[in-house]
Amino acid sequence: MELHRREFAALVLGAAAGLSAAKTASAETDPLPSWNEGPAKKAILKFVRETTDSSSPSFIPPPERIATFDQDGTLWVEHPIYTQVVYCFDRVPAVVKAKPELANEEPFKTVLTGDLEVIAKLPMDDLTKIVVPALTGMDVDQFRSEASSWLETARHPRWKRPYTDLTYLPQIELLQYLRANGFKTYIVTGGGQDFVRTYSERVYGIPMEQVVGSAPGLSYEYAPNGKPDLFRDPKLLLNDNFAGKPESIHLMIGRRPALAFGNSTGDQQMLEYAKASDGARLAMVVLHDDASREYAYGPARGLPDTEVGTFTQALYDEATKDGWFVVSMKKDWKRIFAFEA
Amino acid sequence: MELHRREFAALVLGAAAGLSAAKTASAETDPLPSWNEGPAKKAILKFVRETTDSSSPSFIPPPERIATFDQDGTLWVEHPIYTQVVYCFDRVPAVVKAKPELANEEPFKTVLTGDLEVIAKLPMDDLTKIVVPALTGMDVDQFRSEASSWLETARHPRWKRPYTDLTYLPQIELLQYLRANGFKTYIVTGGGQDFVRTYSERVYGIPMEQVVGSAPGLSYEYAPNGKPDLFRDPKLLLNDNFAGKPESIHLMIGRRPALAFGNSTGDQQMLEYAKASDGARLAMVVLHDDASREYAYGPARGLPDTEVGTFTQALYDEATKDGWFVVSMKKDWKRIFAFEA
Repeated sequence: MELHRREFAALVLGAAAGLSAAKTASAETDPLPSWNEGPAKKAILKFVRETTDSSSPSFIPPPERIATFDQDGTLWVEHPIYTQVVYCFDRVPAVVKAKPELANEEPFKTVLTGDLEVIAKLPMDDLTKIVVPALTGMDVDQFRSEASSWLETARHPRWKRPYTDLTYLPQIELLQYLRANGFKTYIVTGGGQDFVRTYSERVYGIPMEQVVGSAPGLSYEYAPNGKPDLFRDPKLLLNDNFAGKPESIHLMIGRRPALAFGNSTGDQQMLEYAKASDGARLAMVVLHDDASREYAYGPARGLPDTEVGTFTQALYDEATKDGWFVVSMKKDWKRIFAFEA
Repeated sequence: MELHRREFAALVLGAAAGLSAAKTASAETDPLPSWNEGPAKKAILKFVRETTDSSSPSFIPPPERIATFDQDGTLWVEHPIYTQVVYCFDRVPAVVKAKPELANEEPFKTVLTGDLEVIAKLPMDDLTKIVVPALTGMDVDQFRSEASSWLETARHPRWKRPYTDLTYLPQIELLQYLRANGFKTYIVTGGGQDFVRTYSERVYGIPMEQVVGSAPGLSYEYAPNGKPDLFRDPKLLLNDNFAGKPESIHLMIGRRPALAFGNSTGDQQMLEYAKASDGARLAMVVLHDDASREYAYGPARGLPDTEVGTFTQALYDEATKDGWFVVSMKKDWKRIFAFEA
């Protein structure tokens, strides 16, 4: 209950902040002040203007105004490693405490050394061995409570700030601008749905039920006191990457997005799916080309190659061919983080 | 696109109808005119008053105001047979046309005779054989278009009206009343999610994305013209009955309902799950005890016993013990259908 009240307070404060910002702004004020003038910003403003004007041939009725955003690398920093993977590594001591025999087994042994360079080279199979006990087996409330506690104390190695500070300000503005124009904003992440739900309202203004992500199967069971609860099973129900993104969008939303925003091959099918339907549609991808303010990375990435999170040449070519907008962090974003002036 | 525009028109007309109804009503007007005075109505009014009053200890912050409703037997008539099962039977000629060799195989042979008494006695396994080709294999748009067309022409055998006319007026009023008080209303049905989504906005004022139901797996594929589409696979991804209801609620909404309404053993776990959390919670079950205006049925039902849709003595006992309200159609509902004076 404590968590609920806190979330509500954050929501109210967030709304109040939004209101006071609106009050100080005139009708002509730029809704996207952290975006530089250029083709991407122009395309967004044109898209919103035309799809919300009932006399325009591009008009989209409000129920159809669905906007879907990938999270890692699209709404917040994904380097040097996905936040939720860091979470899994940080859960290893608790996992080993519960099952001490794991201390001498790989990959737990390596992770417990804390040697990041060696950890970074662990093969994908080893990562799976950590993910399962780190993220499943507990009830859904315990999972959320552990994830929330971790997010309060964990710090990004470069900025020494909570991961939730590392959201991109231009995207926060875009989410608010879309909602102010009747769009329903969704996160569609390859990351864990329940992990993101612990902070989505507070950080993005996106309610839990508008977070679509990877999810384990659940089991309904009765505690010894007779109270029912849901437990996280060690099997994947939704793998929300690649084709899994449009599949989950249909399952959880039921409509094709009017706007989709991603940054990697894992978002390719979501972008194609949004673009392929009739009517005005906007597809955008973030290009991480700003090594000084954030990171610059393309086809090649360090760390275990998950085949997600890469902006390949093929994706770039498809973007050009299909009329997606490539958003350059360096050129299109005036400010990247709210904490930086 | 035609469908989308029609849905939007229906939504606008629905909202306008709601507005004009509100205009003619004074602030003191009964929000539930089709409910008789009694403990159930009293409990609803008290629950809404207390959970929306910020000075009450029972106050529920708006984001937590989630109300979940079963559909068959809770929001509309489920007798003599579930609407979607009728749909599957009616699809058999098209299924056999596509695969003529099925004409001499059971259960298709029996269904093609049209002899309802014999059809009603088909075993459950045979029903599954029909359901798979009737509901899967096509792309999601084709499925919706076929279901919509069928709903326009199909008639209920008793009232000779479209199935969508056979929604319970007291429940429509309750949905509107809850929404007017900041509750987000959801359908959580054992029926097919995409089937219900074809009419949920128009009939219940519930948008597609607030329909949770049984769902097949999907496959993302490219058509010969290169356009991507989603196809319905012949395997069940979500079985939204019994424990599947709270599991799907967590997956698709992420919060425990504050109010849950059902009518059968298939809703038991959803009702328990809603009731078991902290704070003010309301659980209700419809008792079908009105043979003259609708139907009267309890533990024993005709037709193939699906083990869903039955209000058993055990469920009745649990309702009494756990403080669920049993809503008697006969005593609690003044009017049942909008088309009846």
